Amino acid sequence: MGPHPAVAAIRLAVRRVLHDILNDQTSRASAGRTAERLPSPLVLVACSGGADSMALASALAFEAPKLGVRAGGVTVDHGLQAGSDLRAEEVVLRLRELGLDPVESVAVTVGREGGPEAAARDARYAALDAAAERHGAAAILLGHTRDDQAETVLLGLARGSGIRSLSGMAAVSGAGGRYRRPFLHLDRQTARKACMVQSLPVWDDPHNTDPAYTRSRLRHEGLPALEKALGKGVVEALARTAQLSRDDADALDTWARQAEASVRDAAGLLECAKLYALPPAVRRRILRRAAIEAGAPAGALFARHIEEVDRLITGWRGQGAINLPGRVVAQRQGGRLVIRQG
Amino acid sequence: MGPHPAVAAIRLAVRRVLHDILNDQTSRASAGRTAERLPSPLVLVACSGGADSMALASALAFEAPKLGVRAGGVTVDHGLQAGSDLRAEEVVLRLRELGLDPVESVAVTVGREGGPEAAARDARYAALDAAAERHGAAAILLGHTRDDQAETVLLGLARGSGIRSLSGMAAVSGAGGRYRRPFLHLDRQTARKACMVQSLPVWDDPHNTDPAYTRSRLRHEGLPALEKALGKGVVEALARTAQLSRDDADALDTWARQAEASVRDAAGLLECAKLYALPPAVRRRILRRAAIEAGAPAGALFARHIEEVDRLITGWRGQGAINLPGRVVAQRQGGRLVIRQG
Repeated sequence: MGPHPAVAAIRLAVRRVLHDILNDQTSRASAGRTAERLPSPLVLVACSGGADSMALASALAFEAPKLGVRAGGVTVDHGLQAGSDLRAEEVVLRLRELGLDPVESVAVTVGREGGPEAAARDARYAALDAAAERHGAAAILLGHTRDDQAETVLLGLARGSGIRSLSGMAAVSGAGGRYRRPFLHLDRQTARKACMVQSLPVWDDPHNTDPAYTRSRLRHEGLPALEKALGKGVVEALARTAQLSRDDADALDTWARQAEASVRDAAGLLECAKLYALPPAVRRRILRRAAIEAGAPAGALFARHIEEVDRLITGWRGQGAINLPGRVVAQRQGGRLVIRQG
Repeated sequence: MGPHPAVAAIRLAVRRVLHDILNDQTSRASAGRTAERLPSPLVLVACSGGADSMALASALAFEAPKLGVRAGGVTVDHGLQAGSDLRAEEVVLRLRELGLDPVESVAVTVGREGGPEAAARDARYAALDAAAERHGAAAILLGHTRDDQAETVLLGLARGSGIRSLSGMAAVSGAGGRYRRPFLHLDRQTARKACMVQSLPVWDDPHNTDPAYTRSRLRHEGLPALEKALGKGVVEALARTAQLSRDDADALDTWARQAEASVRDAAGLLECAKLYALPPAVRRRILRRAAIEAGAPAGALFARHIEEVDRLITGWRGQGAINLPGRVVAQRQGGRLVIRQG
C-alpha cells in the first residue's frame, strides 16, 4: 500500500523540484568544465511551523536522501508575538525530528517600511538569503500553495498596475534561482491533509486569521465571497492567470528592451516620432524603464504617471514638464522626450 | 449656476464621445474624397430604462443638438418577464420626452446558447445592429459604467484564460467602431445621481438583483466583499487593469501575427525549432491561432489545451496526437507541427 494521496502529492511536487535543482547544478558544472565529482548539494526548507511548510519539510526529509541531496531547515523568528522565540525553538526540534540537518532558528528585527506585511517579508528573505550563503545551500524551498498564489494575484489586481502585478509568485526566483516553490500548483487543503495523516503537529499563525491584515481578510472573506459568486474554480483560475500574465509580461519586457535601442537618437535621447509608432503597451514600458533609470522609485511609479508622460507623445499640445516621483521630470523638447532628475 | 456635478460629468463624457464620432466621420469622408457637405449624423442610445442608460439618454439629448448631431434611441424588449412589452413602451415614451427622435422598441427572442446572460446579450446586439442599419446611425451609445467594467474583469478572471479575458469591454467596439461606451470611466453612482437630480424616473431590472445570475452575485456579494478586504479602490483598479490588459493583449497579438509568417516553412507548416525559439507568450498565441484556423471553436479552446500542444514543442518525448475541440488534432511530424481537422 502506498502513502496517502495527499502525502504522495507533496512528495511528487518536492521530487520534481529536487530533480530541477540537480539538473541545474549539473548544467552549471558542465558549463564550468569541471571534471570533479559534484558535492552533495544542500537544500533548505523555510519553515514557519504552519501546515504548508511542515508538509514541505516532511516531503523534503523523505525525498532528499533518495536523490543524494542533503536536507536542512531554517525557521525565522520575526519577534512580533510574545513567545515567538520559544515557538521557533519548537519548530527547530520538529525539523530535527524529521531528520533535517543543519537546522537553525534565525531571529530578525522587522522594520516598518512598506507596511507590516512587506516589512516582515523583507526581513524574512534577508535572513533566508544569509542562511543560504552561510550554509552554502543550493536552494531554499518555500511552502507557498496555489491558494497563496490566488491571494497574491488578487492583491496585485487591487494595485491596478498591470499584468506584471497579476503574475503572482514565480516557481523559481531570487539570485541564481535560489528560491523554489514546489507547492505552487497544490492546494492548501492537500498540505494540511498531508500533515494530518503523517501526525505532524502544525501551528496556526494567528496573523493568518487577524482581520488587521489584508491577506487575512482576503483569505477568510474576500476569496470565499468571490468563490460563492463565481464558482469553486476561482482559485485555480487565479493561479492560471498568474502564470499566463507572467509569460505575457516577460515577453513584453523583452520586446520593450529590444525596441528601446531603436527609438533613441545618436545622443541617446528618446525620439517622440519613433515612440509614437510603437504599440502603446511597448511604448509605456519603455517610458517606465526610462523613468526608473532616471531615478524614479519603481514602487512609487503608477500607471497614471506613465499615462501622463505618454500623452507627451500621443496627445502633444505643448504641455509643460511632468513631475514624477523621485524628483524626476519628463518633458518634450524638439521632438525628443527628456526624462531626468530635476 | 452650472448643472449638478453628476450631470456635468455625464454630459462631458457624452460630449467627448460625440466629438470622436464627428472626427471619425470627417476623416472617413476626406479619405473618400467627397467634397459634399456631410449630412447630420444620427447617434442612437441603447436604453433599458435603468439609471445608467437613462442618464446616458439625457446627456445625449442635451449635447447632440449643440454639435449638430441627431439623437435617437432604441430599447430592446427581451420578452423574459411578464409585462416587458409595456415596460419597453414606457421607455420609448420617456426617450421621446427627452426629445430623442427616432425612438423605437424592438422585441427579440432570446435563445439558450451559452447560458441565459450570453443568449440575452447576443439577441440584444443583433437587434441593435439591425436598428443601426435601419436608421443609418453613425453610432450606438451604451451605458456601461466603470462598475460594469470591474465586474466584467472579474468574470474574465474566473475563466483563467489569460489577459485578453481580463481586458473587459472596449470603449469603442463593433463593426466600424459602431458601439461607444461613454461611461466606462464613470461610476454607477454618478449615473444614478444624475437621474435623481434631473428627476428622471429609472427602472431597476429585477435581474440585476437576482442571485441566479453570476453578474448579480458578483455585484451584490463578490465585489463588496473584495472591497471590504482590499479597500475602496478595487473597482478603479479593476477598470485600469482592463485597459492595461487590453493594450498588452493587442501588442502580443500583433507580435504573434508577425512572428507567425517567420515560423512556417515553404509548405506553410509550422517549424518546431523556430517555434521553440519564440517567447512562450508569443508561441502559445500562434498555436492558438493555428488551432482556431484548423476549425477549433475559440470558446471551447482553453489554456490547458494550448499548453498540451505547446509541450509537443518544449517537452518533446515522442507524444502522440493531441485531440482538441472541434475534432482538431495536433501532432508533431518530422520537426513540423501539424494541426488539422481529423
